[in-house]
Formats: sequence, C-alpha cells, structure tokens
Amino acid sequence: MFLKVRPLEFEARKPTVILNSVDAEGLGVKALDRVELSVGKKKAVALVSVAEHFIEQGEVGIYGGVEEEIELRMGDRVRVRPCTPPESLAAIRKKLSGNVLKAPEIKGIVEDVVGNRLSDVEVTAFVTALYNHGMIMSEVSALSSAMAATGMKLRLSRKTTYDKHSIGGVAGDKTSMLLVPIIASSGMVIPKTSSRAITSPAGTADRVECMCPVNLELEEIKGVVEKTNGCLVWGGAVDLAPADDAFIKVEYPLSIDPLLLPSVMSKKKAVGADYVVIDIPTGRGVKFKTIAEAQEIGRKFIELGKKLGIVVECASTFGEQPIGHSIGPALEAREALGVIKAGRGQPDLINKVCHLAGVLYGFKGIRNGEERALKVLRSGKADRKLRQIVAEQGGDPGIRPQDIPVGSHACQVKSKVPGRVWWMNNRALIQVARAAGAPSDKGAGIMLHKKLNSQVKRGDVLLEVFSEHAYKLNRALETLKGLNVMGVAREHEMVLAEIPEEEEHRQYFVMER
Amino acid sequence: MFLKVRPLEFEARKPTVILNSVDAEGLGVKALDRVELSVGKKKAVALVSVAEHFIEQGEVGIYGGVEEEIELRMGDRVRVRPCTPPESLAAIRKKLSGNVLKAPEIKGIVEDVVGNRLSDVEVTAFVTALYNHGMIMSEVSALSSAMAATGMKLRLSRKTTYDKHSIGGVAGDKTSMLLVPIIASSGMVIPKTSSRAITSPAGTADRVECMCPVNLELEEIKGVVEKTNGCLVWGGAVDLAPADDAFIKVEYPLSIDPLLLPSVMSKKKAVGADYVVIDIPTGRGVKFKTIAEAQEIGRKFIELGKKLGIVVECASTFGEQPIGHSIGPALEAREALGVIKAGRGQPDLINKVCHLAGVLYGFKGIRNGEERALKVLRSGKADRKLRQIVAEQGGDPGIRPQDIPVGSHACQVKSKVPGRVWWMNNRALIQVARAAGAPSDKGAGIMLHKKLNSQVKRGDVLLEVFSEHAYKLNRALETLKGLNVMGVAREHEMVLAEIPEEEEHRQYFVMER
Repeated sequence: MFLKVRPLEFEARKPTVILNSVDAEGLGVKALDRVELSVGKKKAVALVSVAEHFIEQGEVGIYGGVEEEIELRMGDRVRVRPCTPPESLAAIRKKLSGNVLKAPEIKGIVEDVVGNRLSDVEVTAFVTALYNHGMIMSEVSALSSAMAATGMKLRLSRKTTYDKHSIGGVAGDKTSMLLVPIIASSGMVIPKTSSRAITSPAGTADRVECMCPVNLELEEIKGVVEKTNGCLVWGGAVDLAPADDAFIKVEYPLSIDPLLLPSVMSKKKAVGADYVVIDIPTGRGVKFKTIAEAQEIGRKFIELGKKLGIVVECASTFGEQPIGHSIGPALEAREALGVIKAGRGQPDLINKVCHLAGVLYGFKGIRNGEERALKVLRSGKADRKLRQIVAEQGGDPGIRPQDIPVGSHACQVKSKVPGRVWWMNNRALIQVARAAGAPSDKGAGIMLHKKLNSQVKRGDVLLEVFSEHAYKLNRALETLKGLNVMGVAREHEMVLAEIPEEEEHRQYFVMER
Repeated sequence: MFLKVRPLEFEARKPTVILNSVDAEGLGVKALDRVELSVGKKKAVALVSVAEHFIEQGEVGIYGGVEEEIELRMGDRVRVRPCTPPESLAAIRKKLSGNVLKAPEIKGIVEDVVGNRLSDVEVTAFVTALYNHGMIMSEVSALSSAMAATGMKLRLSRKTTYDKHSIGGVAGDKTSMLLVPIIASSGMVIPKTSSRAITSPAGTADRVECMCPVNLELEEIKGVVEKTNGCLVWGGAVDLAPADDAFIKVEYPLSIDPLLLPSVMSKKKAVGADYVVIDIPTGRGVKFKTIAEAQEIGRKFIELGKKLGIVVECASTFGEQPIGHSIGPALEAREALGVIKAGRGQPDLINKVCHLAGVLYGFKGIRNGEERALKVLRSGKADRKLRQIVAEQGGDPGIRPQDIPVGSHACQVKSKVPGRVWWMNNRALIQVARAAGAPSDKGAGIMLHKKLNSQVKRGDVLLEVFSEHAYKLNRALETLKGLNVMGVAREHEMVLAEIPEEEEHRQYFVMER
C-alpha cells in the first residue's frame, strides 16, 4: 500500500506511524503491530497507531525518528507493508513463560530496547517476567554485559579503577562526597557516577550539583578523572547503560526493581571498574530489612562480579536512621562540606565513609584502611581533593557551606512528650522532605535536631523543615501530621502504636540507580 | 502550579497531559505519573507525558478527554498538581507479587481499566501477572462479574436464554451460522454475539457480514431477538465487556491469553445466558492439543458457570482440519448458505452443528436432540429462520450463495505426489488465507479440494487460493511455498519431515473472542 507522508512533530523515541483505521484494516495491522516503510531502497520499521479522523485515509502520520531514517517529507509517497515483530519478542515470550534465556537472546532484547524497537507493552512484559520468574546467575550476567555493551564506555589510560555503590534507601546519605576525595587523594582512581533521586529526597548527583555542574559528557569526565583521580558526576548524562532508562520507565510506576543487580553492575562494567565496594543499608524502612537479606543480595553481587571480571566486596550498614543530621540536596551538601573541611563532626557519617574507604584500600593491599581513611580526612587532603574535583567539574573551589542557599521558609517541629528517641521513620522523613520540594527544589529538606537514643524534653525541637515556597512548607507540615516521624517515649513504655482497623500497611519503594 | 491550556487533537482514550520537562520537574512528576487538573471546583486526573520542546514551559498540552471533562479551551489557566495513583494500582502490584486478590480489588482494577485510568504499563503488568501466577476460581469469577458489570447488558423480556461459544482456532468453522437458526426456529432464544477474526482468517461476525450488517446497537439486537428468537451480530459493536478490549490490546502483541475464561463468560453473563454450550476444538494446530487438556479447561468453564449462575456444558470437537471445505469470510458464508438451504453436504459441519444444537435441546429436556436438530435442518425451517434473521438485521432474505462475491484472482495448488492426505497444517492454512487478504478482504480465502484421508493422484488439485488482488494472491502463494499445508503420502511412508537443524518451532497463537 502506498501512502502520503505527513510528518508529525510529536516527541517520541520510538519510530511510530499513525494509520487511518481503514488503511490499517486494509493492511491487516492493528495498534502496536509493526509496518515497514520504504522509498526505493531505504527502509524503516515503525510501530503502528490507528486513528479514525486524525489521519485521513491514504495518509500516514510519522514521528519518533522515522522521518530521519529514510528522509521523508510532507507529501512524499511511501510504501507501507506489514512486517513481523523483532526476534527478541519471541525471547520475551519465552521468559514470560518462565523459561531461562540464553545470552544471545538477552543480547537481542537489550539491543532492541536500546534501539527503541519494542513497544511499552513488550518492555513491560519483559520487566514483569523478570520480576515474576527471576533470573539465574548466567542470565543476570548476560543481561549486565549486554546493558554495558549497548552503552558508552569510559576508557581511562590508568589501569586499576575503584568504585563504590550504595543500594540506597537511607535518607541523608552523603557518603560518596567524602569517600571519593579520600580515595582519589590517595592516588587511586575512582570515577564515581551517581544517580539523581528517583524515590528519595536527594541523590548524590543532586547534592554535588549544589557545588558544581554534574552533567558532564564522557570526554569531560575522562578529563576530570585523568587530572584528579576522581569525579562526582551524574551517570544519567552519559549513556553508560541506556537500556536501564527504558527499564526504569516501567519499574518506577509499578514499584518493582527486578533489575537491581544488572543495573548496578552494568554501569560499573561500563566505567571499567576493577574493584567495587557495595554498601547495603540494612534495617526497617530500607530495601533489605535484615542482615540475612543483605548477605543474600551481597553474595549475588560478589558472584556476578566474578562473572564480569570485577572484584566486589559488600558491607551491610545500619539503615534505621538518616546519616548525619541533614536531608535534602543543599542541606546535605552543606553538611558534607562542613565535615570534610573540619575532618570531624557527624560521627556516623565519618564511620561509614572510613569503613567503606577502608575496604577500597584493602583491595590495594593497604592494612588498617579504616584508620588510614580517617587520617586522610583529618589531614585536610580529602578537603583539598574535593575542591580540586569541584573546580575541574566547573564549580568554585572556594565554596563554603553557607554559600549554598537553603529554603527561606522553615518550621520547627517540637516534641509533645519527654523521653528518648526509640525509632525513626525513614519513609516518613523521606515523604516530608519530598513534600517540602526535594529533590527538585535543592534548598528543601529536613534538619534533624535529635537522632536515635537522643534524650528529649517536652518542647524540645525534634526537627526543622525547610522549603523554598510557603505552600510547599505547608504541604510538608500537612504530610508530617499524619505520620509518626520519630518515636519518643519513656523507658519501658511498651505500646508502640495503636493499630488502626483495616488501614493497609504501605511499603515504601526504594529505587536508587 | 498554574499552566496555560493547549488542547491537542490527538486521538487517545486515556486522559493525558504533556508537560514541559522543566514544569514536570517543578511538580516533581515523571512520565506516567498522574496529575490533577482543576479549574474552580471542576477536576480531572490525567497521565503525564513529558516533552522538551513540543510543549513550552508554562503550557500544558491536553488530550484524550481531559478537555471535555472540565471544559478547557486554548489559553485557559488550569491548576496542575501531582496526585497519587488509583488504589487499583496497589492491587495490581499485589497480584504481580503472586498474591490472591479479593473481589473488591478485582472490581477496582476492572473499573479503572474501563475508565481509562491505568497506563499501558500498568495494564500490561496486570495481564502478565495473571499469565504468570494464574487465578484461583474465586478470582476468575470476580473478574468475570466485574467485566460484565462494567459493560452494557442485553435485557430480553423472555426468560430462558441459550448461547453457544467456540474457543476457536480451527479454520472454516461456520457452525454458528447453522446452529443459531436451528435453535431459534425451535422457539428457544439464542442472542448470539460473535467476534471478528483476531488471529484467524474469519470470525463469525466476518462471515455473517457477507449477508447482512452485524454492527447492531443494543436496542437493535433486542429488536431482532424479540422478533426472531436469535441474532448473529458482532459483539464488539456493543460494549458487553469493554475491559476485554483493553486486555486484548496487551494480549495480542504478546500472544498470551490468560483471560480466556472471564473473557468468554463475562459476555455470556452480559447477554443474560442461562444455558451455554462451549465448543473446544481439540488437536494439533489448535489451542488444546489433547482431550485431557480440553477436559481440564471444560471443567473450569462448568465450575465458573456455576458461580455465575449459568449452566455450562462443553464438547471437545475434532480440530485437526478445517470444518467443511471453505476458509475465508465469503467462501464460508457461501458454503453455510448452501448447506442450510439443501439441508445436506459437508457432513463434518452438519455433524458438529447438530451435536452442539443437541446439547442445547438437552438443556430444555428434549431427548435425541442431535436427531431433532438434523430434522429441523433438513425441513427447511432453519433456512427460513436464517433468512428471517438476515432480513431483521438489514440484509436481503433472498440472498443466494452465488450473490456473495469471492476474489477474482485464484490459483490451484496441485499435489506432486500420489497417496493419501495424512495430516493438514491448520496454522499453515490460516497463514496462507490471511496472506491472501482474509479477513479484511472478504473475498479472500481457500477452497479445499481434499481433506484428511482423501485419495490423491499425482497432479490432483489439493486446494485453490482466492484473492481480491493479484499481489495478495502472489503473497499467499509465496507464503504457501515455505509451508507444508497437507501431508500427502503413500501408506507406510514413515518419515513425516526432515527435521532441520536449529530452526525454531513457532507456535501458532489462537485468539478468538
């Protein structure tokens, strides 16, 4: 069938055509089927949408890259023929039926995902099939490799490369901002790429962006690392594993994360990491509740690392309260800058940083790594290195904590009862910080005045909420009302909460990439 | 956030907004999140798309019904706020994790599917979760009821209503075109709604449409049935179970069909059926390969019927070759008209029709139903009833087989070897008929000259392919080349086929609704 081209200016990543329903019936195709367009020897495949009126009979609306692929202009005549779906769809169906996939099948799926040749329905079917049936290690390994192979690669001239990753979920975790400078200042290469927040109030990229640009291109990252041994950039600006973006698009609305292992490790592979330490925050309110659960996923990371040629060590860290006292991009950046400058303060943050840095030192054969990390931090070397990285990424190396603006609308929350803080509700804190505007409003967030085991007098300030806008502050305080963010009680008060009838327990979904 | 409305003329069923990426970030929403639009007290919820350039900052593009829901015009200022997903999403996630759903949860999902409040990703997750985890009978029953409850209902004044359904998959099955007139002419009410072909070369609706309109509205169907006791209409023209359309949109591209039971039975419920006979074609090339498989699904239909207040009987019928000699809407309509007129010919068709009609007679307490059906057929009563139905639906009651046009491009396929027909490749026949243009070209299809066990001489015509267009005939013959449509061999020739290395066995996907 020959149709007249009508280019549409819609933004979409998938090559798509819109056919009039009469033509679609004539061709024997339905929505989400595929057609081949051809003019002379130039060909392109596109997904089908069907319209009753928007596109007239005899016309074909095109967008999402079709017009570039075969250089079509308004009014051109193009041949349209039904065509079969890509072979990877057969592999998706196979996984959907619970079968184990072979490496070439997985590679085919990932290539078609990256090439935007699969519809949302098909990608969703793949992701939910992984969620339902799981993967055996050979599949995880093949998926990680394929995800790395279809993306860009950081090729450094230095050989040995170190990296760190956190599974996330614990609020206020500014560990990387201290760990990267410590490691880099010791002559070890650590090209750290981080995510922006997905379900949390701040990702490392959001925090660092309060000090310097993080959207660097691959060559720029290479330049920074070659000069400073480290970097603190947003991984999303460079397509290290572009398939992951397509998977996240499905995982996020469904609150499922079956691709945790390949998502993390494909990116480590893409930056050429040889040694990686993985932080697994553990406790109520984060992804892994118990040390046993943390060990289980940790062992999988180690095994997957072996298959990918990466030495992995994992640490289960205390995840039942925020790290340090700040939550939200600007507040956290301020706190991190303060601690790295002084070499002291926020003992839980320093302990975590030094322990994880110690693991990386251990890879290099350095003993007492944790002590060494503390020394480097206290010496001011880490502070100088952070400022060097900030400068190379295009920020002001002289930046002081107070130079980072925080929201001017603030409100203190006080305790109505005396006692001790017995627990913190991580999820509630995250909800409040996000309601206040974090992560997109960098100045929004929470300062904790009390942490676990703090003594509390009636009327003591428990925390302070910051926001850039009055209405968002109100929204945050409204959110806070319905939630118990901290459990303050006298010793031996045994009733934690009255359990309301019928209210459903809502699980907080942790997604950090 | 207040934004300026820009109505877009896209056709879509889901209320959707397109936000500029800066505004989306400001609101803290991502693609497929939801926002609430409000002007004064009028509110609407829409799914989010994000664009970089297509929509400017400060603007909001709207389509898919949003503009009607709150009467928005170009340039209006509308308040846009993030909002939480519908509760049914929690139920979808629950099923995704393998849990059993309660009736209210299933009802919530179906209502949101019908109300277009769920994204493609979410509907796909639900359908694939059903495919992966299956459903227990209470879930199937709740789903069937919810699917019927959210659709339209046929309310007839007569009390007892009979119906018939075929699981499909066998080509050339024109059973309903004879069965409905037989039953209706016996004073029993049978308001038969049928599907158009999804993966086959013709559905009953496609066949009947060669004689009279089938796109009747509910009141028109009621009129036809009140007058004639029967009808032969397209179910898709009346929304008996509109959720099914949304599910099919996902099932079809993935070639999965986890909703067979609720899909069939929700529609029987919606037409008010009291007694239903279900035909389960059985054999290689159709959905259920063995009698044991047919019995398993048959028992489920019976059990589900009990829960829905419908008496169900099932028959496993021979599905290893087409019914009669014709495949394709016009050829089949011609054949059915010929058999019902003469009361003889096509013994397999007559046997199947009379057996299934006999089951329906049995429900009414009539003994020897099969013989009675044959009598009615031979008496000419069924023929007169069919013509009455055709007339009431708006067709010509005097229509003769030769009045139905078939494709003028035809080609005979001859046997290269002598012997006997040992097997027929149902899937190959379907592929060839579809390549010839069926079902959208009504005159396209296949006439079989030989069937199973026929004696074949070298050079005998095995079949004839018909098409409305020369290029489609060529395409059909091209398709035929690579396939073995009939196995002709001498007795005791034991090698069925050389098994090629590495070629994958492709399963033909049967989807009839």
